Amino acid sequence: METVNIALLGLGTVGGGTLQILRRHADAIERRTGRRVQVRRALVRDPAKARPAEAEGVAITTAIDDILNDASIHIVAELMGGCEPAREWVLRAIAGGKHVITANKALIAQHGNEIFAAAEKHGVIVAFEAAVGGGIPIIKTIREALAGNDIRSVAGIVNGTTNYIMTEMRDRGLDFGAALAEAQALGYAEADPSFDVGGIDAAHKLAILAAIAFGTPLSFPHVAIEGIDAIGAQDIHYADTLGYSIKHLAIARRDAEAVELRVHPTLIPQRHLLARVDGVMNAILVQGDAAGESLLYGAGAGALPTASSVVADLVDVLRLLSAEPDHRVPYLGVRPGAVTDLPVRPLAAIHSAYYLRLGVEDHPGVVADITRILADHAISIEAMLQRPDPARPDTMPIILLTHRVWERAMDQALDAIAQLASVRGPITRIRVHTDGAC
Amino acid sequence: METVNIALLGLGTVGGGTLQILRRHADAIERRTGRRVQVRRALVRDPAKARPAEAEGVAITTAIDDILNDASIHIVAELMGGCEPAREWVLRAIAGGKHVITANKALIAQHGNEIFAAAEKHGVIVAFEAAVGGGIPIIKTIREALAGNDIRSVAGIVNGTTNYIMTEMRDRGLDFGAALAEAQALGYAEADPSFDVGGIDAAHKLAILAAIAFGTPLSFPHVAIEGIDAIGAQDIHYADTLGYSIKHLAIARRDAEAVELRVHPTLIPQRHLLARVDGVMNAILVQGDAAGESLLYGAGAGALPTASSVVADLVDVLRLLSAEPDHRVPYLGVRPGAVTDLPVRPLAAIHSAYYLRLGVEDHPGVVADITRILADHAISIEAMLQRPDPARPDTMPIILLTHRVWERAMDQALDAIAQLASVRGPITRIRVHTDGAC
Repeated sequence: METVNIALLGLGTVGGGTLQILRRHADAIERRTGRRVQVRRALVRDPAKARPAEAEGVAITTAIDDILNDASIHIVAELMGGCEPAREWVLRAIAGGKHVITANKALIAQHGNEIFAAAEKHGVIVAFEAAVGGGIPIIKTIREALAGNDIRSVAGIVNGTTNYIMTEMRDRGLDFGAALAEAQALGYAEADPSFDVGGIDAAHKLAILAAIAFGTPLSFPHVAIEGIDAIGAQDIHYADTLGYSIKHLAIARRDAEAVELRVHPTLIPQRHLLARVDGVMNAILVQGDAAGESLLYGAGAGALPTASSVVADLVDVLRLLSAEPDHRVPYLGVRPGAVTDLPVRPLAAIHSAYYLRLGVEDHPGVVADITRILADHAISIEAMLQRPDPARPDTMPIILLTHRVWERAMDQALDAIAQLASVRGPITRIRVHTDGAC
Repeated sequence: METVNIALLGLGTVGGGTLQILRRHADAIERRTGRRVQVRRALVRDPAKARPAEAEGVAITTAIDDILNDASIHIVAELMGGCEPAREWVLRAIAGGKHVITANKALIAQHGNEIFAAAEKHGVIVAFEAAVGGGIPIIKTIREALAGNDIRSVAGIVNGTTNYIMTEMRDRGLDFGAALAEAQALGYAEADPSFDVGGIDAAHKLAILAAIAFGTPLSFPHVAIEGIDAIGAQDIHYADTLGYSIKHLAIARRDAEAVELRVHPTLIPQRHLLARVDGVMNAILVQGDAAGESLLYGAGAGALPTASSVVADLVDVLRLLSAEPDHRVPYLGVRPGAVTDLPVRPLAAIHSAYYLRLGVEDHPGVVADITRILADHAISIEAMLQRPDPARPDTMPIILLTHRVWERAMDQALDAIAQLASVRGPITRIRVHTDGAC
């Protein structure tokens, strides 16, 4: 029985979970692959910290060179997160002929092109199932299982923190700040929550999904990003009244000319499966020309779900360790020479339906002024709510749902509406998901 | 550029769909694998039948030997269905060193052990993603993506015909016969619908799912099977009143001692994602010890979704064509020597909650008699409905939901209840799904 030695960079949540699964399932992995896995070394930041029982027999170090210079280590699992020093160390591991498994979405989204080129040059695998969707096997599904499809779109709830916050806002009427504080108390949100609630984390994942779905280079800098901090409890309430849930969606679409890459709050019809994905759960909907709509739902984060994906990658790597690179699944699903770039469509050029909320002075003619401006921009209205807000008796909230329109026309219409003397305060605008499932 | 020749056995719905995708995506497959696919031959039953435009250049034959004796054919895709002659031809293809892709669930469920042993002996791949869940990549997900898990259960809606019928019964109040007739008129059900509505098709799929989830041999003869024909429109109505949908579920569970393999109608809480899977769509929920609950949803049948899975298998085969067998995913997820049998638990020994419907003479003491018998068997009641049925004024329907109990106790209690003089007609008993998601 051949033993394969691996090293973990990081023994935190995901590293600890990975160690736990590897111990628990060592025999099962052997039954699957015919190979025995041994975790030989682990890199940690603080050598004094207490380790889980599973770490017994693992040589703990704070010096990366102890791992990178150890020729007996075949596979490095990078489970630290963050771009540096992860990028440097992963590139050094690759240059040393070690296969790499990573759960690091920031690293792949921002430096994937460089990392994959290096891996191609050195003939090693870089596997990253755990980087997107935690325990949901979305990378394998898109790269392999849907290989017979021209993928048209990928749309998903890929950040559990924002989904938890929005679910609590809806179910318990909390405002954003209170729901965020609760998520922080429960450990679902970081002390600095900006990566999650600002949409950066979701954008990292979207960049990865789009690259493998469309066979394009990683294009994180071109993702249009809106967070959830501008969504009020009243928007969630009004959306519900209109038959919608608000979810923070990551959306990639492709047509013959361009791709769309955007992360933003989105109204979703309540009968749609994505609208039913609550709490910290994640779900991703993929539209292919042959398979039609496929939805994957599961735990998007957490020690064991993420480690489940790390170990699935490891099983793949173990099987292909001694195979020719040609026998492996290419990093972006298509062979490196076949990756083809496509322009990213600016947000102004997308076509979407919209939810609008604005506050007006309640006097005759205000609604007529607003609807006239919309009509002048060829924007037609699907539904309207107009309800006094007891908390603000001087301002009447107006909520509008529009049909699909070019975003540029909506931008222009909203500029004109904002200049009406009777319109008060900022206008809230949320895109509406009108595609698909259920 | 290396060209790989394939032959299709069958040019019907799935064969035609496969041909269509292979033509449309020939370049994409080349970008993914570095190999060119050519469909050289196709076996048909009726040579006079009109062929799709994509069949141009394909040598059509009615003689299987034209394909099996052609050494230039590397891969055979068996898309005919049925056990014979598919079994014989697949075994001959394997013996001839050809890789096999099949969409045939009956074949794999009933003859998989023999077929995989032959394939192992001859060093060829037998791929069967399309056999379960149409376009849903459940085989790959369980065998590869969840390889880091001890899978505890798989529960799914895997037959679109029964799901369509039950959805129509619920949404339009149709009885079973009317909904079936409509499904036949729309082409969702066969003229002889017994394989679908009787649960055989779902049992074939379940046998395959259980084998790959648990690393056990295929055990189709041990699947406990109930169809949907005993479900009345009134059961669907009462279930709805109690907050449940009725779905035809295929369920495999495993613990340290045994596996459960069963296909039957099941009440599912309406908040559960599986309860929301309507019409011809399929969905499968997998419970792993690391990933937790994962749900896959998509098109369970149809030419293009099924062909999508055939082509995904083909891409995998193309990549691994010249690799050593060790580099491939084993047929049942674990290496042939590691497949381990487990006893199948008899239905009487399962633990489940139940929905019961019975008709009684409406006089004092009847309900007391029934609930006394249940109490004597340690069966506690969660909910009860008692509503006059205007169509049958002499019989009062009583609907009960019980807590979880051993099925043997329920069998005994129902035997005793059936002997009460005031109980009329058969007792309807439907298991209730109390696990999981959402």
